[in-house]
Amino acid sequence: LRYRGDEVVAILDSTAAGSSTSQLLGVDTDRPVVADLESGLRHRPDTLVIGIAPRGGGLPSAWRTLVLAAIDAGLDIVSGLHTMLADDGEIAARAAARGVELVDLRRPPRELRLPREAGEPPRSPPRVILTVGSDCNVGKMTAALEIVHAARARGVNAVMAATGQTGILIAGGGIAVDRVVADFMAGATEQLIDELGMADWVVVEGQGALLHPAYSGVVLAILHGARPDAMVICHHVGRHRISGYDVPIPGPARLLAIHEEAAAWVSPARVAAFALNAHGAVPEEVEAYVDRVRRETGRVAADPLTAGDALVEAILEQFN
Amino acid sequence: LRYRGDEVVAILDSTAAGSSTSQLLGVDTDRPVVADLESGLRHRPDTLVIGIAPRGGGLPSAWRTLVLAAIDAGLDIVSGLHTMLADDGEIAARAAARGVELVDLRRPPRELRLPREAGEPPRSPPRVILTVGSDCNVGKMTAALEIVHAARARGVNAVMAATGQTGILIAGGGIAVDRVVADFMAGATEQLIDELGMADWVVVEGQGALLHPAYSGVVLAILHGARPDAMVICHHVGRHRISGYDVPIPGPARLLAIHEEAAAWVSPARVAAFALNAHGAVPEEVEAYVDRVRRETGRVAADPLTAGDALVEAILEQFN
Repeated sequence: LRYRGDEVVAILDSTAAGSSTSQLLGVDTDRPVVADLESGLRHRPDTLVIGIAPRGGGLPSAWRTLVLAAIDAGLDIVSGLHTMLADDGEIAARAAARGVELVDLRRPPRELRLPREAGEPPRSPPRVILTVGSDCNVGKMTAALEIVHAARARGVNAVMAATGQTGILIAGGGIAVDRVVADFMAGATEQLIDELGMADWVVVEGQGALLHPAYSGVVLAILHGARPDAMVICHHVGRHRISGYDVPIPGPARLLAIHEEAAAWVSPARVAAFALNAHGAVPEEVEAYVDRVRRETGRVAADPLTAGDALVEAILEQFN
Repeated sequence: LRYRGDEVVAILDSTAAGSSTSQLLGVDTDRPVVADLESGLRHRPDTLVIGIAPRGGGLPSAWRTLVLAAIDAGLDIVSGLHTMLADDGEIAARAAARGVELVDLRRPPRELRLPREAGEPPRSPPRVILTVGSDCNVGKMTAALEIVHAARARGVNAVMAATGQTGILIAGGGIAVDRVVADFMAGATEQLIDELGMADWVVVEGQGALLHPAYSGVVLAILHGARPDAMVICHHVGRHRISGYDVPIPGPARLLAIHEEAAAWVSPARVAAFALNAHGAVPEEVEAYVDRVRRETGRVAADPLTAGDALVEAILEQFN
């Protein structure tokens, strides 16, 4: 909604039908929230985007009916699920019969490789910035996009390297690193950066968290595959535990130490700044966290949605 | 050869034909090394095991001919490649026609899950020991197997949880964690431990190295998925850099710190001991490293092939 809102005609959410997206999500783009596909079709969509993923990323059986109905109504389907719709016999056959397209955002590229070895030609020249986070769903993609926008406003040719399904949908390309065969995660990340080698800055969208019991491995692979020149730590102010897990999120100094430590195992990188997600937090809480970051780490902390330029400034300072 | 040598009739290696395995590898089991399949067939095998994997894990075209010829000769094929032989139309058809079996050791289980969340019933009771390493191919599987043997000799019901193709071949089961969809690495590790929940000790075979640019993510996922009670660091004495990469291997104190740090992000774990691979090293070099480990870390270092019991002793001390 924030980055491709012009193309959205309605949101399908049976639990919030009747509200609008500005009420529900606090975004500027105002679109109706509808209860079912039939109500959605009145807004004349041409595509159904499956924008959320259930735990584990499979296709719940209730959604199969919905997907098939959307195909019958002539909609293309764009899916971010782990389950590949185009590999599902029933769904593929129905889509072919109706002449609609199935786009699986997480489908890995056909050719994957390992990171280049010592002695191979070095990586293409751009500066690499990686957004990392204190948990899933804290704003790593948003921070990456806002850093790209703010950098461009200063004349830096910046691009985002999308590593997750929503980032791929917004950027129009990328690799869902969490969906590749595990051995190829770091190589896929490097490959993605190589493909964007004409840019000045490649801002790599991070995933998960080094502290996350389920996804930490994906994060370390992206970190070592990207070999960033700078990292930006993303944190949702007011969140104190990894969602769903009994793992506390440490304060800024320790978050910084963890990321610089992990980077250094392969290639040293500094944290340039903290990007704060202020959703649901009161201003005093955010200000207190900004102060704490400055006091504990000497780094700038800013909300990328309102102060992306401050993050770019901090990154530039590190590069100079 | 070391663990299932009784079942081996010959080794196919065109670069070492004519020598014997005791000369070539320093193992007790002596088997002929042959130059080609035809010579191998004279030793009346019933199975061709593809025991090595080229970089990237694909099937080199030269091997296709060999695999097809082995099928035609009536051999089952056991493969540790990333490329699944049973999914290859030509190979599968030929195997079906000849009535032989194709076993892909790295094939992921049909059902994978994420690690259990807070509030779910906790893990089954066994103690979990994880072998970690300073590089690939330093002896993590061997250390795990020898710890299991030495523990059993003391009456501890220990089993290995195999996470790689060779370990799976030896143990007769397991999950190749480097071959699963990246999001499920930690969950697959936990699942593997759960399946062995009747044992006293589950010794998890580690993979790669936290310092390895290509595979570090797999390692962190296994570490966080296993939540070990103790770690054993495996190191090949005399190796100073990650094979193929320009990353130095640090000394014992730093290796220990890195692993205890990474474990602590999710669940603290101590390094109980160092398992040394002495292949190709002179005794003085090994002794010097044992001393260095004791001096820098206070831990025991021992060659699992000759002193597995010393490693078990160190683990038991940590558990008491």
